[in-house]
Amino acid sequence: MEPILLHILGCGSAKPTTHHLPSAQILEMRGKYFMIDCGEGVQTTMQKMGLSMLKIGHIFITHMHGDHVFGLPGLISTMGLLGRTAQLHIHAPQEMEDFLNCILKMFCEGMEYEVLFHAIDTKQHCIIYEDRSVEVWSLPLHHRVPCAGFLFKEKQALPHIRREMIDAFNIPISQINNIKAGASWTTEDGTFIPNERLTFPAEPARSYAYCSDTRYTPRLAEMIQGVDLLYHEATFPHEMLTQAQKTMHSTSIEAAMMAKSAGAAKLLIGHYSARIKNESPLLKEAKSVFPNTILAQEGVKIRI
Amino acid sequence: MEPILLHILGCGSAKPTTHHLPSAQILEMRGKYFMIDCGEGVQTTMQKMGLSMLKIGHIFITHMHGDHVFGLPGLISTMGLLGRTAQLHIHAPQEMEDFLNCILKMFCEGMEYEVLFHAIDTKQHCIIYEDRSVEVWSLPLHHRVPCAGFLFKEKQALPHIRREMIDAFNIPISQINNIKAGASWTTEDGTFIPNERLTFPAEPARSYAYCSDTRYTPRLAEMIQGVDLLYHEATFPHEMLTQAQKTMHSTSIEAAMMAKSAGAAKLLIGHYSARIKNESPLLKEAKSVFPNTILAQEGVKIRI
Repeated sequence: MEPILLHILGCGSAKPTTHHLPSAQILEMRGKYFMIDCGEGVQTTMQKMGLSMLKIGHIFITHMHGDHVFGLPGLISTMGLLGRTAQLHIHAPQEMEDFLNCILKMFCEGMEYEVLFHAIDTKQHCIIYEDRSVEVWSLPLHHRVPCAGFLFKEKQALPHIRREMIDAFNIPISQINNIKAGASWTTEDGTFIPNERLTFPAEPARSYAYCSDTRYTPRLAEMIQGVDLLYHEATFPHEMLTQAQKTMHSTSIEAAMMAKSAGAAKLLIGHYSARIKNESPLLKEAKSVFPNTILAQEGVKIRI
Repeated sequence: MEPILLHILGCGSAKPTTHHLPSAQILEMRGKYFMIDCGEGVQTTMQKMGLSMLKIGHIFITHMHGDHVFGLPGLISTMGLLGRTAQLHIHAPQEMEDFLNCILKMFCEGMEYEVLFHAIDTKQHCIIYEDRSVEVWSLPLHHRVPCAGFLFKEKQALPHIRREMIDAFNIPISQINNIKAGASWTTEDGTFIPNERLTFPAEPARSYAYCSDTRYTPRLAEMIQGVDLLYHEATFPHEMLTQAQKTMHSTSIEAAMMAKSAGAAKLLIGHYSARIKNESPLLKEAKSVFPNTILAQEGVKIRI
């Protein structure tokens, strides 16, 4: 099965540091690049990681803070310079529209492609994008401004056909789709072959949830139940809980509590405060609650 | 004498590459940081170079192309996060004002410092900033959009006093400023001491000119006559002259011709096209016309 890859372009927070870049990721899923957040510097990082900007079809922005947005003007302009003609879709809270219009008017005259804006209702948990193989759901988060996380879900593939059974029972090609869809088969001599003998289940659909920036929000767990990989912000260590509450962020312990109650297979933490010089205590704390935790790092590719 | 330092933050052009960042410089002059252009990524580069963002008082923007501007939203926001209270002055073509208002309205609410905009008439060669020790002049450039370069000039310091003469002729302290301003002295016995015996000239005032982006413009030479360091864009090698003419840029030979006709002491070239993988041919070409030429590189500090 084709892997789903998560490319980390930036996992710092608002104040820039020499060791982290602001938030940005590329989720590579079913041959498509979905960008999640777009902090300053994404173009350089994508080039260093060998990721083509032109492969991005949809950009999902969680909220209108500069460290999640300021890479967008440059990215949109550069795609124009590179001769893009395919539409680019930007999904973001409503506040994005004015910013986008300002950028397009001032810097993108004569560009040969179209940028389409799709407003996200940050209070709803609903499908905001869908194609043949993927669904993207909004996740209502709690931050200082309207903010939504995202759940990327593969659609469940149909079962695989057992080739040898098709041959053995002489089943015509025209019936394959019916059998994939659940039909059984009766041979010419009247023998009934149940569907389970003709097929075997497809691999389970995979999923990825991105929850940043947010105060710890227990009821998120039910929306991302059983997720394969959860990226949850862990801006602060738990000893800075008061700071996390004040700024509407989460601690590493809270990120791990979310992974645990969501029954996630794996937790990825990031959005480190500029005050954190070394992330290993964050990792240690999170692991004490949810052992299968890893730290986000720029330039890293994670297989889901 | 305190050195004037030019810090190169970025010297690439519009399409980002892995080896260059978009245009940005800091001119450190008489204890002040003047920023010139502000391409995406300046914050990270300044941090790596150990330059404090809060020391920037004035930002001079040549023109409204993204590769000279897209670092500004992040820089302005971060200065707010860092608790800046001092005013920040932005000098740019009139078109900047709408962009600035858009950024300030959307991302800078509650910031504790003021951003003041000063429009530059890109058609005039005139003083656009002046303080006790420095003058900044606009330089009308020729590009696809309104564009001005900048000439930074120290004001000529007054001559130095010859301490030993002051003592020898018993000249009172109250006369020192008059003598610095050119007065001579007559002693009690009527001996006339000409000013030249009482003073010696101050070091000559230094200057720096920034000319980017621009088509080769011969009449610029008279405005920057005798400049100590000239930064002139050399987007293309001379074999790509047609491309330079079409896009309103200059070749390395043209940059060198400008340095020569301006009688510059030194030429610094940059704004390399993304197509240039190796800049040494540009340097070789420029040196064939103007030997004292150097290549701009990110992270480099040049003493003027």
